[in-house]
Amino acid sequence: MTSRRDFLKQSGALGALSVLPFAGYSAGIAGESSVMNEGGRRWADGTQLVVSVSMQFESGGQPENAESPFPQNMKKGFADLPAATWYDYGYKEGIPRMLDNWDKLGIKVTSHMVGSAVIKNPELAREITDRGHEAAAHGMNWSNQYDMSYQEEKKFIAEGVAAIKKATGFTPVGYNANWLRRGQNTLKILQELGFTYHIDDLSRDEPFIISVNNKDFAVVPYTLRNNDILLIEGKNFSTDQFFYQVKADFDQLYAESVYQKRQMSISFHDRIGGTPQMVKTTYDLIRYIQTHKGVSFKRKDEIAMLTLEDRNSIRE
Amino acid sequence: MTSRRDFLKQSGALGALSVLPFAGYSAGIAGESSVMNEGGRRWADGTQLVVSVSMQFESGGQPENAESPFPQNMKKGFADLPAATWYDYGYKEGIPRMLDNWDKLGIKVTSHMVGSAVIKNPELAREITDRGHEAAAHGMNWSNQYDMSYQEEKKFIAEGVAAIKKATGFTPVGYNANWLRRGQNTLKILQELGFTYHIDDLSRDEPFIISVNNKDFAVVPYTLRNNDILLIEGKNFSTDQFFYQVKADFDQLYAESVYQKRQMSISFHDRIGGTPQMVKTTYDLIRYIQTHKGVSFKRKDEIAMLTLEDRNSIRE
Amino acid sequence: MTSRRDFLKQSGALGALSVLPFAGYSAGIAGESSVMNEGGRRWADGTQLVVSVSMQFESGGQPENAESPFPQNMKKGFADLPAATWYDYGYKEGIPRMLDNWDKLGIKVTSHMVGSAVIKNPELAREITDRGHEAAAHGMNWSNQYDMSYQEEKKFIAEGVAAIKKATGFTPVGYNANWLRRGQNTLKILQELGFTYHIDDLSRDEPFIISVNNKDFAVVPYTLRNNDILLIEGKNFSTDQFFYQVKADFDQLYAESVYQKRQMSISFHDRIGGTPQMVKTTYDLIRYIQTHKGVSFKRKDEIAMLTLEDRNSIRE
Amino acid sequence: MTSRRDFLKQSGALGALSVLPFAGYSAGIAGESSVMNEGGRRWADGTQLVVSVSMQFESGGQPENAESPFPQNMKKGFADLPAATWYDYGYKEGIPRMLDNWDKLGIKVTSHMVGSAVIKNPELAREITDRGHEAAAHGMNWSNQYDMSYQEEKKFIAEGVAAIKKATGFTPVGYNANWLRRGQNTLKILQELGFTYHIDDLSRDEPFIISVNNKDFAVVPYTLRNNDILLIEGKNFSTDQFFYQVKADFDQLYAESVYQKRQMSISFHDRIGGTPQMVKTTYDLIRYIQTHKGVSFKRKDEIAMLTLEDRNSIRE
Repeated sequence: MTSRRDFLKQSGALGALSVLPFAGYSAGIAGESSVMNEGGRRWADGTQLVVSVSMQFESGGQPENAESPFPQNMKKGFADLPAATWYDYGYKEGIPRMLDNWDKLGIKVTSHMVGSAVIKNPELAREITDRGHEAAAHGMNWSNQYDMSYQEEKKFIAEGVAAIKKATGFTPVGYNANWLRRGQNTLKILQELGFTYHIDDLSRDEPFIISVNNKDFAVVPYTLRNNDILLIEGKNFSTDQFFYQVKADFDQLYAESVYQKRQMSISFHDRIGGTPQMVKTTYDLIRYIQTHKGVSFKRKDEIAMLTLEDRNSIRE
Repeated sequence: MTSRRDFLKQSGALGALSVLPFAGYSAGIAGESSVMNEGGRRWADGTQLVVSVSMQFESGGQPENAESPFPQNMKKGFADLPAATWYDYGYKEGIPRMLDNWDKLGIKVTSHMVGSAVIKNPELAREITDRGHEAAAHGMNWSNQYDMSYQEEKKFIAEGVAAIKKATGFTPVGYNANWLRRGQNTLKILQELGFTYHIDDLSRDEPFIISVNNKDFAVVPYTLRNNDILLIEGKNFSTDQFFYQVKADFDQLYAESVYQKRQMSISFHDRIGGTPQMVKTTYDLIRYIQTHKGVSFKRKDEIAMLTLEDRNSIRE
Repeated sequence: MTSRRDFLKQSGALGALSVLPFAGYSAGIAGESSVMNEGGRRWADGTQLVVSVSMQFESGGQPENAESPFPQNMKKGFADLPAATWYDYGYKEGIPRMLDNWDKLGIKVTSHMVGSAVIKNPELAREITDRGHEAAAHGMNWSNQYDMSYQEEKKFIAEGVAAIKKATGFTPVGYNANWLRRGQNTLKILQELGFTYHIDDLSRDEPFIISVNNKDFAVVPYTLRNNDILLIEGKNFSTDQFFYQVKADFDQLYAESVYQKRQMSISFHDRIGGTPQMVKTTYDLIRYIQTHKGVSFKRKDEIAMLTLEDRNSIRE
Repeated sequence: MTSRRDFLKQSGALGALSVLPFAGYSAGIAGESSVMNEGGRRWADGTQLVVSVSMQFESGGQPENAESPFPQNMKKGFADLPAATWYDYGYKEGIPRMLDNWDKLGIKVTSHMVGSAVIKNPELAREITDRGHEAAAHGMNWSNQYDMSYQEEKKFIAEGVAAIKKATGFTPVGYNANWLRRGQNTLKILQELGFTYHIDDLSRDEPFIISVNNKDFAVVPYTLRNNDILLIEGKNFSTDQFFYQVKADFDQLYAESVYQKRQMSISFHDRIGGTPQMVKTTYDLIRYIQTHKGVSFKRKDEIAMLTLEDRNSIRE
């Protein structure tokens, strides 16, 4: 195999002569040459690029008057009734629409489920796992987790797991804290409760292994840059901007994946990613990705397992 | 008729092979398969997809120094004179321009009219109904409605209705609260006053029936995602972004409507949706929608009637 | 001449059959049919559509630590040195670049000049008028004007005029208040000082006449929707969004101008509209507009004169 | 050589007849004709347009709970753990990816290095200079610099320089203050410490000379309008908007550079400009720029030297 440094030397002059922007894009020399990246890693199962899609199941479990696109100026003591219906959309339309989209696209995703949302709509939770998707835990409700005591937090996580198990029969092995904000004890608790991975880390474009309680634990990185909650809910981007930005992310990671182990993460929330405009956009995006050879859509539990079993995985 | 589950089974393999993004889009399997959506519903009149357009008539009735695109930093005790002219634009240019656009496009819309705006420009209100559009009620003025007592609120709604009746001769049967924020008594009052529907609910992409005072009452859902006040007034989106996002919404709902009863809602406000740039954009958007068979633009009073008369309507 | 109502009747069926969006756009029936718009007005000089461009000359005259794109979190008592250089760009690069662009495009514009900016760079002010553009007044400095006493305000306006006259030899007849926020006495003072028009009104897409001190006074409307300060400075839009939005505004107004007197207003500020990216975008925009027959770019003093002399002008 | 004024006279009529927007763009007459710009300057080395790219090396050196895309609502006393991983991405993925991109594109850039970030990852700092890029100083850490005493500030700058020298062996000659906010003593200190230029000035699109301590000192201007921190981090723009806006900036400056000395500045930050979506966008942008003759990508130390040695440089 030609190393990236060799490739760089060979293609250097050629690169400088290439005057056609946008055509025949290849990241080529990415990665191996840096001191931060010792290179040579590939996916153990022969995949070139792994794409992981998240579908957050949170609506119905939100606290009263939770933040929404409505002006945040309600007088205290009154219920924000239309905002509640904005959340209801998540389970009445959003999740069902996304589930049909995943089937149509032929992919399986990871659904991070808030316990209180599962209790509100257990049949929908079960439908998610029945249709082949992964149920991952996402806390018992929408509370901050980073300021809980060890005991509180352990109970909070365990109750969320129990709600998922009861509704779906599925035992979650992955975890996502509210707004990714884990506390100092979170990883230790997760290891104690039998989890194999968490996602609350944005530091890499590939999974890696950390040691928790002297045992291996997988980190399957998440991202905000391909995530509907930051880009779409806050009206920062229209759906076409979401498409172009995430497409560019794929193009680069796919080019890098010729030489290096790469994972792409894309995330959707029930009441945001489940609108017609977002589901159409997501369909177009994933169909575009699926035109590329060597791309595999994987659930995060599978990614965690591949990572933990791979002696070439990065260890931090 | 082939059910959606059957369609899914048949088209599954095919779907996975389809490598042409953007072409021949069909939502196909959307909806019926979910536990949240028992399927089988269609519009009673044979329409495939119903599109409902709102035109809010509010300008001229706003309180002094109402929020506008100008910096919100006026010293107290002084009038924000240019901001008032920004609102004046709504009735001097916005509504007339939109009325001509609806005629050119051959569609009828629902105009939610604030009582104080109608009193300020009664001839324009009458022109709206004379040209075949629906007058719906939108409160007597721009006050919060959710914190009123039952008596106050009933008077507030009834006065708004009276202003509309007096100016137009039209009796409103539909209601929209300020920023959709109804209170605990609102639906009861609306039922008492003879209304047949309200729109202050974002939970579904189809109308449904609720029981109020033990009688049926229709909900014709509204949306913020195809709405100029959130997307355009706050300068979140330029008009081309509005076009692409709402177009994507249509594409998905149209594809779903092959198998399922679907309603699309689009909303415009006089001083925002009535600018030249927005009217041109709206024209392009609706012309695009009109190239699709089976689409019917309906006033919300007609949608409410079809919903209440249809024994297959969702009941909550 | 076929009236708009007749045109509407004739073209109604045709309109409903037209299924090609984006092609052959004509507003056609806009305007005349509304009670708000009695129609029949055209530009007295035979122009179909008048476009008026503003170039605000304000940089160099701003107060210390004036708002800029830098984070607004300076400790008190310290100068925001890089923010001052952001303003310097306005006269060092912005105005010269725009002046060359106007020459290249063959158009004349109206430059609203702040007195303190003129005093800082009198030669540049004179170059603006030497190259055929209009100098309009914009206050002596960046102070709020709406809270001044009659005497203060009269002095404030007169001093700004004197600065412009001294530097350029040009006597301004048009006025623009800081952020358009005139006070209760402003129009009276302007009439007393010999002004013929002001622009601090957003209510119409055509100029009109008001009575001030029992004499006619012209209003040449301004707009925020085609204005770099709201769209570009606040990073609401990128320059391509600015292009598409303002282009759509033109397309609609041009179509309406077949049947109705219409004016389009576009505005640029020295340190914003004068960047390379904005000047290129403006060039493309105006070249696009110039491909349309019957469009005339006019200075606002000319528009005011045409308005005051036209017995068909709207009077409020 | 035809002067710009002559060119203007000759091409004026032609300009007015040109009805093809977007084609054959040439700024042509830009610049020389203005009183602010006496013209005639060109790059001493025969380059037509100089483009300077910055790569800020800051991650790893940020203070605890530094601002990030996460909601800024942490309770006091708790660490924002996922936000820290967002910064870690800057050195783990961002800088390595950008380094490979610069090699692929065949350009050298200027890396402004924060001392604390260099101490955290000295090998990566050295890799930057080993691969041919310039190390410029950017303070010892992320502190405000404008409110320091002379002694404090001198120590703060010198320590940052020492960290860079120790890690890389490279002696920085250029400086960039935190958020460009230098204080009243900064330039004097830089001159004393042997720096030859600073970048904390946005006033021009070409470098210039100022006098500090009676000696020449170069200013190599920076910009916010082609800068990922303002446009991308705050989610103001998606990556495609960044592409179109910066491309328009290049098109104008390139056209002006036929007649005038012009410099274009583009800036990237490790955790922002180093994402896959931004690196792909940057690749497309720079490949587009590289299709134009006479463009030279230069490090800022080279630009400063050319400026100081050129007797035609602007002096302020």
